[in-house]
Amino acid sequence: MTEAELKKALAEVAGAVETMLAELMPDAAGPIGRLRAAMRHGSLNGGKRLRPFLLVGSADLFGVPRERSLRAGVALEMVHCYSLVHDDLPAMDDSDLRRGQPTVHKAYDDATAVLAGDALLTEAFGVLADPATHPDPAVRCRLVAGLARAAGSEGMVGGQAIDLSAERHGLDLAGIERLQALKTGALIAYACEAGALLGEASPEQTAALVDYARLLGLAFQIVDDLLDVEGTTEELGKPAQQDADLGKATFVVHLGVDGARRRAAELADKARCRLDSFGENADALRRTIDFVLARRS
Amino acid sequence: MTEAELKKALAEVAGAVETMLAELMPDAAGPIGRLRAAMRHGSLNGGKRLRPFLLVGSADLFGVPRERSLRAGVALEMVHCYSLVHDDLPAMDDSDLRRGQPTVHKAYDDATAVLAGDALLTEAFGVLADPATHPDPAVRCRLVAGLARAAGSEGMVGGQAIDLSAERHGLDLAGIERLQALKTGALIAYACEAGALLGEASPEQTAALVDYARLLGLAFQIVDDLLDVEGTTEELGKPAQQDADLGKATFVVHLGVDGARRRAAELADKARCRLDSFGENADALRRTIDFVLARRS
Repeated sequence: MTEAELKKALAEVAGAVETMLAELMPDAAGPIGRLRAAMRHGSLNGGKRLRPFLLVGSADLFGVPRERSLRAGVALEMVHCYSLVHDDLPAMDDSDLRRGQPTVHKAYDDATAVLAGDALLTEAFGVLADPATHPDPAVRCRLVAGLARAAGSEGMVGGQAIDLSAERHGLDLAGIERLQALKTGALIAYACEAGALLGEASPEQTAALVDYARLLGLAFQIVDDLLDVEGTTEELGKPAQQDADLGKATFVVHLGVDGARRRAAELADKARCRLDSFGENADALRRTIDFVLARRS
Repeated sequence: MTEAELKKALAEVAGAVETMLAELMPDAAGPIGRLRAAMRHGSLNGGKRLRPFLLVGSADLFGVPRERSLRAGVALEMVHCYSLVHDDLPAMDDSDLRRGQPTVHKAYDDATAVLAGDALLTEAFGVLADPATHPDPAVRCRLVAGLARAAGSEGMVGGQAIDLSAERHGLDLAGIERLQALKTGALIAYACEAGALLGEASPEQTAALVDYARLLGLAFQIVDDLLDVEGTTEELGKPAQQDADLGKATFVVHLGVDGARRRAAELADKARCRLDSFGENADALRRTIDFVLARRS
């Protein structure tokens, strides 16, 4: 798979995700219409849709029909988007800009942003539980339980709590790895876990994919830290130098720019190894590693 | 069933809910421990646990084992509690007091209250999807899908959006009924729907129970409006006269105190009729109507 082919595949999944998201949040009259518009603003914003892409790519390994893996990917993306909407709130990171657009609380108001995030999270579970996601309800229950774990207090939200804590500034490298494994890693790992669940993969296959995702997620975060230092606000679509301005300990603070880049490359190599047993079928997932390392936003 | 017996039954369910909630949110080290403490603060606060009681009472009609209906009731209560935690935020109702205690954002901070609410909501779905809630995954999926609907943008969160909207002050009686049917009614109706789902009730039985719950929910809300006018802050455990101070249209504003009381009694009678087909078994649900009408907090 060439870089151009990967970009095409990414764009294809992103387009399908965008369409399905819009269908799930139709317009409505009155205040509910405004809430829905805020939900769309927080989710239909041209994101990379990396998590759905990983989910679909993992499910593809087992021949899962795309309409199923896309639905699960959309549910996962709704959870990712809700977390960004709440993260941007004045009470949290207080960000005005996201992907070059005003954040939801800026475009609407704080209360609407809280509610839009709440609704995105709530309805994501409805999408997973729907028979259209998988004909076997046992598989759907596992998808729901897995997402609740990955997004809850021992997963993403737990990571956010660490990120906002007083201890945040003094974290050592192991502490930052743990923080990021929860804050961004848990949902990325779930993407591959969900693909394996949909495909009723063996425990070994599932473990290999989840390992791949964890390593990729960590590399992704290191690149994020590098971009925060090296990128411009225009490239990023959000303020650059945010972490440095807040005095947060990051991979770059601990490892330096070159050290962080080396560490990301090492993790990428390890992630690649975890795909060996899947042969050529895993080319899209393999190529995604390069994409994550090379990304500029 | 006497009033004393109902109070005993309520206390029994409330105690079991409290125990199970505490087990689901164990202590942890560091910032996640603080997040968990905030989750417990927002949920282990001696609430009436009316929603779990309705769920358990509905499930009892069909001989559902209590350990199953209590789990579903706990999940529902987690969603109810998350909605209170977010509702109390400065960006929303800005309340300092809830059940006589400082609200979560007062006892902790705004960011922690956002995250604690998010985690309660997320993990509620994990509780429902767990095999301990019901052995049949198809039933569990229906529970998840139903809760996502009742709590999402067409249910509770939709009601909250109406409640916070600019249109709120000018609502007529039908508008207030619709608002309350969503904001508080949807979860109360889900309580009985979930009991019916667990008991694999017939469509007629389910419809009767859901009707009962909708009527009860509306009566509950009218009593809430009456208490806001007539109760004291000490009795309520939250500021009295909040609605009047905010100039909100309520049932009392439209119907007057006597008219509102009459309307609540009419709804109560209708709710009672919906239980006729269940005979004596529905005594607890019948008695709950009186409890809701007579409550002082």
